[in-house]
Amino acid sequence: MKVTSDDIKNLDDRYRANLVNSLSGFKSANLVGTVDANGRTNLAIVSSVFHLGANPPLLGMISRPHTVTRDTLENILTTGEYTINHVNSAIWKQAHQTSARYPSDVSEFEEVGLTPEWQEGVLAPFVAESRLKYSLKLVSSQTIELNGVMLLIGEITQLYLEREAVSEGGYIDIESLDTVAVSGLDSYHVINGIGRLTYAKPNTKPEIFG
Amino acid sequence: MKVTSDDIKNLDDRYRANLVNSLSGFKSANLVGTVDANGRTNLAIVSSVFHLGANPPLLGMISRPHTVTRDTLENILTTGEYTINHVNSAIWKQAHQTSARYPSDVSEFEEVGLTPEWQEGVLAPFVAESRLKYSLKLVSSQTIELNGVMLLIGEITQLYLEREAVSEGGYIDIESLDTVAVSGLDSYHVINGIGRLTYAKPNTKPEIFG
Repeated sequence: MKVTSDDIKNLDDRYRANLVNSLSGFKSANLVGTVDANGRTNLAIVSSVFHLGANPPLLGMISRPHTVTRDTLENILTTGEYTINHVNSAIWKQAHQTSARYPSDVSEFEEVGLTPEWQEGVLAPFVAESRLKYSLKLVSSQTIELNGVMLLIGEITQLYLEREAVSEGGYIDIESLDTVAVSGLDSYHVINGIGRLTYAKPNTKPEIFG
Repeated sequence: MKVTSDDIKNLDDRYRANLVNSLSGFKSANLVGTVDANGRTNLAIVSSVFHLGANPPLLGMISRPHTVTRDTLENILTTGEYTINHVNSAIWKQAHQTSARYPSDVSEFEEVGLTPEWQEGVLAPFVAESRLKYSLKLVSSQTIELNGVMLLIGEITQLYLEREAVSEGGYIDIESLDTVAVSGLDSYHVINGIGRLTYAKPNTKPEIFG
């Protein structure tokens, strides 16, 4: 089936959102923890966190200014801090529920039944139930002029995870942590590995290892 | 286990790359098809494609200037066009093999055994074996000053997929297309859905549907 750019332009808004959100492939599922200027906690699920670089350790995140993550965005810009917490298969429903439009003065932690966890030196709350989580300081924010979304870039300050999940070479087996993936706007997926492949060279075939 | 920013800084480069690349969660697996100024085809696997907006339909992609995707980056900047093709479980090994450092004058299509597919009005090759693919025109490119990587933004021009995979509301069941996910630098994952959840509202609990 061929779909042209004009076809996409003429779609109903909700249909278009569902369709185009499916096109990048599987997305990460993370909960972003923040506090506002008064210390009130906020928690929002996002599927837009992406790797930006290992040295320094930078993560990017896209935020739409007019959606439910607005509180999160404002808190990050105000405090300069946030946490990113992997969503796992034990908390995926609570995680999704954070996307409801709660009033600014209620905490999604309480509303959905997740537990804030505090670490020395970090203003923002972690999610106790998450098995891989890290705090970031905001190092860059910019508006993408093409459509008005914001690109936030953060550098990792503290990282918490289960030691058993880290392999000898540094790879983290996020499958063993039951991390889930997202597709589209609302589909959650558990993962079954195929395998890891050896470093690709022109004259060899990739082999499964690990 | 707690890991500080100083710990991360002091890691061996390869270990740090493995570790930090695992932190965003599951990533999309896509093959990027391009041609150079002489029409020679190039194909590279990337795990950095992300959703940026539905209207207009925009996808972001991160490219490191000094890696194997350099040819891809140069081709995109030269021609202003590229294709993004979902990697599925029938071609994941060939897809990974495109990350080998082949000379610029050989085509990864031939080397790894994938088939270029041409569509009228698009300069760049699609991957015939991919079951969801689209072409883009480059609408923005910028260097992220923090670490020198490039952010490329493209707008969809043509989209090809199997009609059966599109649900009534526009959601594409990319699981039914056998699309795989990536974690870290080299781990590939097949997917088993948990379910789709209803639109979240403050006073309801999310329900599984679809």
